[in-house]
Amino acid sequence: MGGDRAPRAPIAGALRALAELGDDDIVQLVGRPEVIEDTIRDLLATELAGGEFSRERVVIIPASEAIDMAEKPSAVLRGKPDSSMRVGLQLQTSGESDAFVSAGNTGAQMALSTLVLRLHEGLKRPAIAAVFPSARRPIVVLDAGANVDCAPAELVQFARLGSVYAEDLLGRERPAVALLSIGEEAEKGNLAVKEAHQSLLSSGLNFVGNCEGRDLPRGEAAGHELDVVVCDGFTGNVLLKFFEGIAPFLIQLVSERAGRDPREMASQLKELDYAEYGGAPLLGVRGVSIISHGRSDARAMKNAILVAKRAVGSDMNAHIGRRLAAGESAA
Amino acid sequence: MGGDRAPRAPIAGALRALAELGDDDIVQLVGRPEVIEDTIRDLLATELAGGEFSRERVVIIPASEAIDMAEKPSAVLRGKPDSSMRVGLQLQTSGESDAFVSAGNTGAQMALSTLVLRLHEGLKRPAIAAVFPSARRPIVVLDAGANVDCAPAELVQFARLGSVYAEDLLGRERPAVALLSIGEEAEKGNLAVKEAHQSLLSSGLNFVGNCEGRDLPRGEAAGHELDVVVCDGFTGNVLLKFFEGIAPFLIQLVSERAGRDPREMASQLKELDYAEYGGAPLLGVRGVSIISHGRSDARAMKNAILVAKRAVGSDMNAHIGRRLAAGESAA
Repeated sequence: MGGDRAPRAPIAGALRALAELGDDDIVQLVGRPEVIEDTIRDLLATELAGGEFSRERVVIIPASEAIDMAEKPSAVLRGKPDSSMRVGLQLQTSGESDAFVSAGNTGAQMALSTLVLRLHEGLKRPAIAAVFPSARRPIVVLDAGANVDCAPAELVQFARLGSVYAEDLLGRERPAVALLSIGEEAEKGNLAVKEAHQSLLSSGLNFVGNCEGRDLPRGEAAGHELDVVVCDGFTGNVLLKFFEGIAPFLIQLVSERAGRDPREMASQLKELDYAEYGGAPLLGVRGVSIISHGRSDARAMKNAILVAKRAVGSDMNAHIGRRLAAGESAA
Repeated sequence: MGGDRAPRAPIAGALRALAELGDDDIVQLVGRPEVIEDTIRDLLATELAGGEFSRERVVIIPASEAIDMAEKPSAVLRGKPDSSMRVGLQLQTSGESDAFVSAGNTGAQMALSTLVLRLHEGLKRPAIAAVFPSARRPIVVLDAGANVDCAPAELVQFARLGSVYAEDLLGRERPAVALLSIGEEAEKGNLAVKEAHQSLLSSGLNFVGNCEGRDLPRGEAAGHELDVVVCDGFTGNVLLKFFEGIAPFLIQLVSERAGRDPREMASQLKELDYAEYGGAPLLGVRGVSIISHGRSDARAMKNAILVAKRAVGSDMNAHIGRRLAAGESAA
């Protein structure tokens, strides 16, 4: 029931995902049954007409409430015990489900995922990872907004979480981790960054040092191809939203100057399209909770479900637990 | 003697600027006299051949040393008493000059400007303002890297400095100032931002509230066209360098997809060209010190000198002093 295009886009994405999931995989659609039934019927009569999938692989889980996109997380935690988001997450604690995907209210998803799934030992909040395109390969940037004022130890945790993300979901081996700062030298940066730099040197991770803002689009820093870039949630959120704004601005500017249609150009730039990545796993919860962009269309939702499948398949959750525990005992 | 293209680009820029400055304005070229003489002679025989200007308006000020682009500011402060940068700045304290322009080592320029010109009352360090293009009009973003860990009161000072910049150099009336954060609401942000938000409400400035990263390219937030965006120097530096990296990356990507030459496209995008702005005044020093990009060409240097002329003409320095004093007494 969540997202700007709900219920149609999530349901269409889920039905499309069935073809690409394993034959034993099912999708559970959580929300008001009559709305879901109507939407499925309509989709099968229109955009999905002729598509084949076994109806037994689609399970409807009733939830009487829905969380509004603008509702405050604190209000969501107190009220709405039967929201589609809470019910969907609870399916994991009762063993009925392996992963949860939503394009709904991100703050509510963070809060409810933390409450229902709980966090790994030593974490204060989950982290959000964003994937940035680069001239080399896509880079995992975290935290993208969940943790605003960060202690050095939290930045080190993000490095551990991001490394597992890069390994399990992007297939990188021994991911190269950089710390976002305002200069390459270890003594450059704000207080938290300077201290985190020292801790990362002995973290056991493949820490390649500081990187600067310009290294993100380049995809490399100090001769290393980057996989993970660590920053506090304030910087990460500002950067992610700036990127989301500057990309269409520049595409429009260049397209117009080149005498081309900006929309057509944008549609050709798959590497800049959030729908390609589909969704970002909330890192640090004991389970799988995939955050999709509020404006996700059916393709983005389908891709988010495939991200969930990869997270389950690689047992990313347990992998994160082991990695954090190893970090704790090394510290 | 400073900048990647010194001495040729700064000298060529200075000679070109003469035509656009007032008839009574002179330029002082500070450095090794023989190098400067040789360069002028060569320029007049090549790219500036046929250009007219009165040689009496070009004054050579001897300085035997030059600061390397990689030298540490701390070393520069201790050594090199006769560097072209220090000598050039001292011309203001002796009343022989109104403004200083350099494409040299930025850290050294900040440190020496602070030492030689001194700061206005109440400031700990000068601030660097960057101008970002937007879909509306260019936006002054500060601090872009001089002040890394910022207290709320410093963010409020940046708002005052940036307002004067927007008034005096960009001709904006009652500039709209926004605070960069991770959400529009006053309670969103890190600790410093949340406290600064409250102080800005009663600052007497035209504070329009928080803005987010995506509002910079849009050029507006909450229905207000933006003139000034305030952030700490860590966030500002990361953002500025990210912009400097993402712009050529996206121009290249779109140009290739459109079958156009990226270099040719970039040259057509004047609004993205740092050389158009020429230089950024170091804000808060008791004088005029304009920081130009290290890779500045003659056009960029000429434009930086014209920025200096506007800063002198509007008496920006005294204006900043009055604005800061008014802020102090209101607080």
